[in-house]
Amino acid sequence: MSDKASGAHTPTPAPRGQAGDEVLVFDTTLRDGEQSPGATLNIDEKLEIARALARLGVNIIEAGFPIASPGDFEAVRRIALEVGQSEDSPTIAGLARANKADIDRAWEAVKPARHPRIHTFIATSDIHLQHKLRISREECLKRTREMVAYACGLAALDGRSGCGDVEFSPEDAGRSDPEFLYQVLAAAIEAGASTLNIPDTVGYTTPAEFGALIAGIRANVPGADRVVISAHCHDDLGLATANTLAAVQAGARQVEVTINGIGERAGNTSLEEVVMALHTRPHVYNAHTTIDTTQIARISRLVSAYTGIPVQPNKAIVGANAFAHEAGIHQDGMLKNPLTYEIMQPETIGITESKLVLGKHSGRHAFQTKLTELGYELSPDDLNRTFERFKALCDKKKIVSDPDIEAIVNDEVYQPVELWRLQHLQVSCGTGLLPTATVRLRGPDGIVREDAALGTGPVDAIYKAINRIVQAPNVLTEFSITAVTEGIDAVGEVTIRVEPTGGNGAHEGDLSLTQVGMRQRTYSGHGAETDIIVASAKAYMSALNKMLTAKIESQQVAERTAMAAK
Amino acid sequence: MSDKASGAHTPTPAPRGQAGDEVLVFDTTLRDGEQSPGATLNIDEKLEIARALARLGVNIIEAGFPIASPGDFEAVRRIALEVGQSEDSPTIAGLARANKADIDRAWEAVKPARHPRIHTFIATSDIHLQHKLRISREECLKRTREMVAYACGLAALDGRSGCGDVEFSPEDAGRSDPEFLYQVLAAAIEAGASTLNIPDTVGYTTPAEFGALIAGIRANVPGADRVVISAHCHDDLGLATANTLAAVQAGARQVEVTINGIGERAGNTSLEEVVMALHTRPHVYNAHTTIDTTQIARISRLVSAYTGIPVQPNKAIVGANAFAHEAGIHQDGMLKNPLTYEIMQPETIGITESKLVLGKHSGRHAFQTKLTELGYELSPDDLNRTFERFKALCDKKKIVSDPDIEAIVNDEVYQPVELWRLQHLQVSCGTGLLPTATVRLRGPDGIVREDAALGTGPVDAIYKAINRIVQAPNVLTEFSITAVTEGIDAVGEVTIRVEPTGGNGAHEGDLSLTQVGMRQRTYSGHGAETDIIVASAKAYMSALNKMLTAKIESQQVAERTAMAAK
Repeated sequence: MSDKASGAHTPTPAPRGQAGDEVLVFDTTLRDGEQSPGATLNIDEKLEIARALARLGVNIIEAGFPIASPGDFEAVRRIALEVGQSEDSPTIAGLARANKADIDRAWEAVKPARHPRIHTFIATSDIHLQHKLRISREECLKRTREMVAYACGLAALDGRSGCGDVEFSPEDAGRSDPEFLYQVLAAAIEAGASTLNIPDTVGYTTPAEFGALIAGIRANVPGADRVVISAHCHDDLGLATANTLAAVQAGARQVEVTINGIGERAGNTSLEEVVMALHTRPHVYNAHTTIDTTQIARISRLVSAYTGIPVQPNKAIVGANAFAHEAGIHQDGMLKNPLTYEIMQPETIGITESKLVLGKHSGRHAFQTKLTELGYELSPDDLNRTFERFKALCDKKKIVSDPDIEAIVNDEVYQPVELWRLQHLQVSCGTGLLPTATVRLRGPDGIVREDAALGTGPVDAIYKAINRIVQAPNVLTEFSITAVTEGIDAVGEVTIRVEPTGGNGAHEGDLSLTQVGMRQRTYSGHGAETDIIVASAKAYMSALNKMLTAKIESQQVAERTAMAAK
Repeated sequence: MSDKASGAHTPTPAPRGQAGDEVLVFDTTLRDGEQSPGATLNIDEKLEIARALARLGVNIIEAGFPIASPGDFEAVRRIALEVGQSEDSPTIAGLARANKADIDRAWEAVKPARHPRIHTFIATSDIHLQHKLRISREECLKRTREMVAYACGLAALDGRSGCGDVEFSPEDAGRSDPEFLYQVLAAAIEAGASTLNIPDTVGYTTPAEFGALIAGIRANVPGADRVVISAHCHDDLGLATANTLAAVQAGARQVEVTINGIGERAGNTSLEEVVMALHTRPHVYNAHTTIDTTQIARISRLVSAYTGIPVQPNKAIVGANAFAHEAGIHQDGMLKNPLTYEIMQPETIGITESKLVLGKHSGRHAFQTKLTELGYELSPDDLNRTFERFKALCDKKKIVSDPDIEAIVNDEVYQPVELWRLQHLQVSCGTGLLPTATVRLRGPDGIVREDAALGTGPVDAIYKAINRIVQAPNVLTEFSITAVTEGIDAVGEVTIRVEPTGGNGAHEGDLSLTQVGMRQRTYSGHGAETDIIVASAKAYMSALNKMLTAKIESQQVAERTAMAAK
């Protein structure tokens, strides 16, 4: 990243070191992406994704919406502390509505970062002003001016020099009266905002319209040349990438994107599509990013595994088939001259034929080398446990592939605290048989309990037997299994999602879900084993443990916050 | 469809009944879509999808590439016979390279349709001419002229009046020298082509470039105003929808699309995205289609089930979350005024809250009514078998949802010929146990065989036990399970894909795979049961039966073809 020239210490509200043709990448996977139904991530998962985003080279990480819940606050704060500390770390942003309570909370969360940013927003379309906020245009303009200034001033209050890094978004800009929009944006600049982000909140605009909106803002808003204009698009009509690129052509120099294009409804603009379009067509867009494209494939898999949101095979750039003609090249003479069909090389996004294939005879050193190659840095403890799992897998499979190893690491290392532990499982089922499961669990109190249950299938039987012991009411909202690699002896990766029932959903201390438009929390669990029945049991234990831990964590964070406020 | 005004009987090569602002929808799910790795469909599945496409209201169905294999030929012929017979049936198209053998074969396959079309193509970019075809520009021009004229003349030879309906595509048009491209297109028009299709073969162009390409053709090709200009885009950079819409704005009046955007690499343009963009923004595009949008959600599920290609939750229009704010509306006061966030209603694409919920006490009449509501027309036999499955499911689940019923119908009705039948299965597994499966199968000879095997997991054990009996060497290339509905008692849908090994892949009579750029055939299997282990066994039996039947069918078709040629 070329962010040496300026920085958080610059006395005027200028964006961090951006050359004329550099497009800043603002990743909102952890904020807008995490608002996808069921994508709830825990703090450790968010930290791991934030680290991967830093390796990818994004310029800004929007880490969350701190006022939404104590858990959200804590995640943003820890990302600021653990991923945002060095001079070339990404800027860490927190979202806030245009009011003091939200902005204070966002600042508390992001201020430990070397480059903190407050991102504040207010709707500017008449339809939102009338139906949602119930305020006049004058009131909207006043709040914008006051709250942007307030956000900018917080840095100085904390003894930092200059005005803070503040981004302002007029929500539903696409349907706002342009003249009023210009007024609001001019007020935000005057009050100190250094980035103006223009959202197509409902994914309704076309590339020509969105490009014209950006051009109109640049031409008509006093001071627009002193700030970064940013595009934030949604993919409801399949046009998010095209709209974002149209904005870049019209002069936008920040793009708000998510990995795999996750997000509410049809999702946000995909980071990988915008980055690779700019990369592949430099002479059309005359713009570039500082993204390390070779990290794209890996972070795509990581985000998919943690959020439990699969990537379809025909997804541009990161789908399993996106470069499929490569795999088929040997059967396919016609494709032998890559110039005829290939516009991107798989290596560019980090899909490489591994030179180091592991198997039965691979020792700890080879295993560790492979982990480093895959971008993991494990603690000695985690390395030991992962290596044991690897050796056990080698007994079952001749060749252990990279995705197998990624599945083991994700399964072994990033698991929630084990309040309840599965000690033993046995299952019998078949046609004409009653599927039956027997389980033995060790509880948080150290006591071992056993039970058995019938079910409509083996997984149902297991979950019912576990429920008899654990007694944490929930409903299973998703269940899926995929083989990690080809071949029937492959590792099967089970992803499930449960939603607590009986008042366990919204934890105390959370901002009312209604207010911020968020849904009931759900908890994902994953398990990876060559035995999909055992993997299903593990996935359920991991989701249950996550759900039970979240309740405890949420209470602890709330207590700590209350203490700090005294 | 407004196709009454003209038709195949028109003496001049005019497109079927198209008003100035009507965009014809040319669906290539069965041709370009089926070229997705692993998407191989059998003839019955292709017929079922073709019927659904006709109900959806597409104007042209590209049913296959008849010369590629006897199976492909047969599928196109049967779709022509069974889906293309009435005056308002879709046009049935078959693909052919620009040579007599291909064109003859395509015409044989499509001519039983009321409205047949030959779609012939030749590359026009220098890179393709030099490296792939190894011919000069002059030769390319000559072949275009001769082969289009030849294709047009076939209709007359068969006693039809007028010139046949012929579509011509210059492959890799986007990288062709514009002046040469204009010459080739003018020659195609002169020779009788009524549709000129412009492909962005490698998914490289931007909306502005592709729109300009179409506008350039309309301005510079003599006779362009007498033919339909068509757009065929690929999604490698995530721009297929935007490029296709740019073409429509530049005057293209046919769009080549696939359901769910399936296709090679990142896939083709999505039918649902283009149709809904035109539908949602009529004043921007000033164009419309005759698609019945309420069929979109259903056909999306059908194509996903048959091809085994999942749709990601954040896919525009047809993803599970695309309308997710609808589901969350009760927890989400902010969304109560739909005007603030909703640009499309879920009902428009056929997502409806069913009024008719089935369960234990539902009789045959209610079940049949539900099937009709879902768009199925089953034979009495199929109805009986499906009803039995439904009653069995009711014993296990309180509420049987629409997706449950769709899973049963797909599982029960559209299964391959059962050469081998699973009679009994029993499995035991767990932690510290050796997963063991026992199977009993009835063979094509009526003899019952039993065997058992150990495996790395229960599915591996089952497949190994079955392999001991069936002895059809194959490798499992994909394995996935998803719960059809929420709740742990849900039906689990297993999709697998196998690839024959040991010389079973390309059947005799197939055009060399290399020549047409196709891959080794793979066979998908699906099984739906509340017991995922039983469902996995069924899925494997269905894939094996498909693989074994394909070999037999292929031999039979080849014999029949050889007979007909005498």
